[in-house]
Amino acid sequence: MSTHEFDVLTIGNAIVDVIAKVDDAFVSREKLVKGSMNLIDEARAEQLYAVMGPATEISGGSAGNTAAGVASFGGRAAYFGKVKEDQLGAIYSHDMKSIGVHFTTPKAKDGPATARSFILVTPDGERTMNTYLGACVNLTTADVDKAVVEATKVTYMEGYLYDKPEAKAAFREAARIARAAGRLTSITLSDSFCVERHRDDWHDLIKSSIDIVFANESEIKSLYKTQNFDGAAEAISRDCPLAVLTRSHKGCVVVRGDERVIVPAHPVEHVADVTGAGDLFASGFLFGHTHGKPLRQCAALGSLAAAEVISHTGARPEVNLLQLARDNGLI
Amino acid sequence: MSTHEFDVLTIGNAIVDVIAKVDDAFVSREKLVKGSMNLIDEARAEQLYAVMGPATEISGGSAGNTAAGVASFGGRAAYFGKVKEDQLGAIYSHDMKSIGVHFTTPKAKDGPATARSFILVTPDGERTMNTYLGACVNLTTADVDKAVVEATKVTYMEGYLYDKPEAKAAFREAARIARAAGRLTSITLSDSFCVERHRDDWHDLIKSSIDIVFANESEIKSLYKTQNFDGAAEAISRDCPLAVLTRSHKGCVVVRGDERVIVPAHPVEHVADVTGAGDLFASGFLFGHTHGKPLRQCAALGSLAAAEVISHTGARPEVNLLQLARDNGLI
Repeated sequence: MSTHEFDVLTIGNAIVDVIAKVDDAFVSREKLVKGSMNLIDEARAEQLYAVMGPATEISGGSAGNTAAGVASFGGRAAYFGKVKEDQLGAIYSHDMKSIGVHFTTPKAKDGPATARSFILVTPDGERTMNTYLGACVNLTTADVDKAVVEATKVTYMEGYLYDKPEAKAAFREAARIARAAGRLTSITLSDSFCVERHRDDWHDLIKSSIDIVFANESEIKSLYKTQNFDGAAEAISRDCPLAVLTRSHKGCVVVRGDERVIVPAHPVEHVADVTGAGDLFASGFLFGHTHGKPLRQCAALGSLAAAEVISHTGARPEVNLLQLARDNGLI
Repeated sequence: MSTHEFDVLTIGNAIVDVIAKVDDAFVSREKLVKGSMNLIDEARAEQLYAVMGPATEISGGSAGNTAAGVASFGGRAAYFGKVKEDQLGAIYSHDMKSIGVHFTTPKAKDGPATARSFILVTPDGERTMNTYLGACVNLTTADVDKAVVEATKVTYMEGYLYDKPEAKAAFREAARIARAAGRLTSITLSDSFCVERHRDDWHDLIKSSIDIVFANESEIKSLYKTQNFDGAAEAISRDCPLAVLTRSHKGCVVVRGDERVIVPAHPVEHVADVTGAGDLFASGFLFGHTHGKPLRQCAALGSLAAAEVISHTGARPEVNLLQLARDNGLI
């Protein structure tokens, strides 16, 4: 039983990122769609790793990155995600706990290894992800700590979780508990291919159980099978009380009923690696939102955090985001 | 049996670096000497990890970094070092092989885990290392592949190896084989505390078995128990045919008999993390030396590689060093 209140609980696939620089020819040779996230099996993971160059390992996972961002802003963050009791699992757990994220999901004692994502970063800073889910498949409803969900202002879940039935059940259970406790629920659509896989299900889920949707332009267009961004924004405004639509360097649009709040992207001198941009945007927005800030300020905090994370390799902030927000006059 | 000739074989402790940014207060609180390398046991490793912030994992190890540098220059590199058959060992092995380093030392099947070094980087870019040697203690003379040593122009060993008796024996055996095959031997003194631990032994070793010594200013002064750099240079000139003495931002002095070649440091805009500076200096020097370049050019290549590695986090080059050398008119 948690006696502590949390601002944001995130639930997602607990993944160690294995980041390598590659050229565009490598991406073509491996028949990958640049910018996408691909689920791979163990055999493909081994094959891909064998042809990749040297890499850097750093904790990642979409919702994990968001929790790290919230903590860096000084928010009270919790995380549910499954690693195995192995070296990468120990690293993942350390990296969460050491930044003050409440993370107590029991580690899997057997079964597949801690998940890893081979993240191929091309010279343009774009990333192509190849994820072996490993131990993530063991996240189940048993890992949904009811007391934590009930004690959290916003429970945020990554769409990627929907790819495995047990994790999907955990996702739905967490949403149910949050709603029953009068708390807010949130989802990120994660990836346009992910939207393709779950479109109908997500229409129902969003209408019935979600308070805040995060999506980028291609994801929201895919959700409503349209090429028209404004049309997609209009559609989501009918299905969900609040939607935050990010448009890369074009900034973002916050949609609340008929209201549209348009906030430009925070300038970035050099884009090193876009991994985590959406995750960190969500962290800034949710930190602001759970601290009663107006939508424009929430979005500006999101833009700032996204700008910080794409300016370096790796999907976790390298500086204290609260200090950065203060230095930029945003808090 | 190797039918291939190598330019440089390096032998050292195979270590995964666990790099975290800390402030100076953390270094004091943990009673560490900034800039030093400390050997720690498993209990201390756990205790230190528990209080450290989030980290990035990247393959390291002094001699391993040097082999990576030689390969990046386009040299033919081989490496002997011991990891365990675990996740970090697989990462280490991948990172060496993927850059073309010949690395076939059998992995330990039991015993302690793959070594890791907790590298604490302070805001000034200085690093303080805390190394748990783990599986490295299992490197023995059985791992010295005679055919590889015999086929290598320069066998280079890190002084750190001397801290464990079995590895020290492997070190001496490799030197013996190299000399018997008419090849060159080289050592880096690694760390001034390491010199303290082995001073008398190393005086004998260098005089009897070493052709090229690498040392920084504090190491060479410690070796000869003097505060006088020129005196230390004079002393090493009598004990060893060739010595390469690095002096951080003051550049380096190459000592060959009465000859002194003084080469300035390559300019660096911002020092992010000095880890690997000496290792990469050695890689550039040895690449040049095994390709028949004059001493001044060898030292300039070393300075260039050192400058590249300290401009970012992590002790392995992030760009192709051969290309960088060409861009700088050094090759």
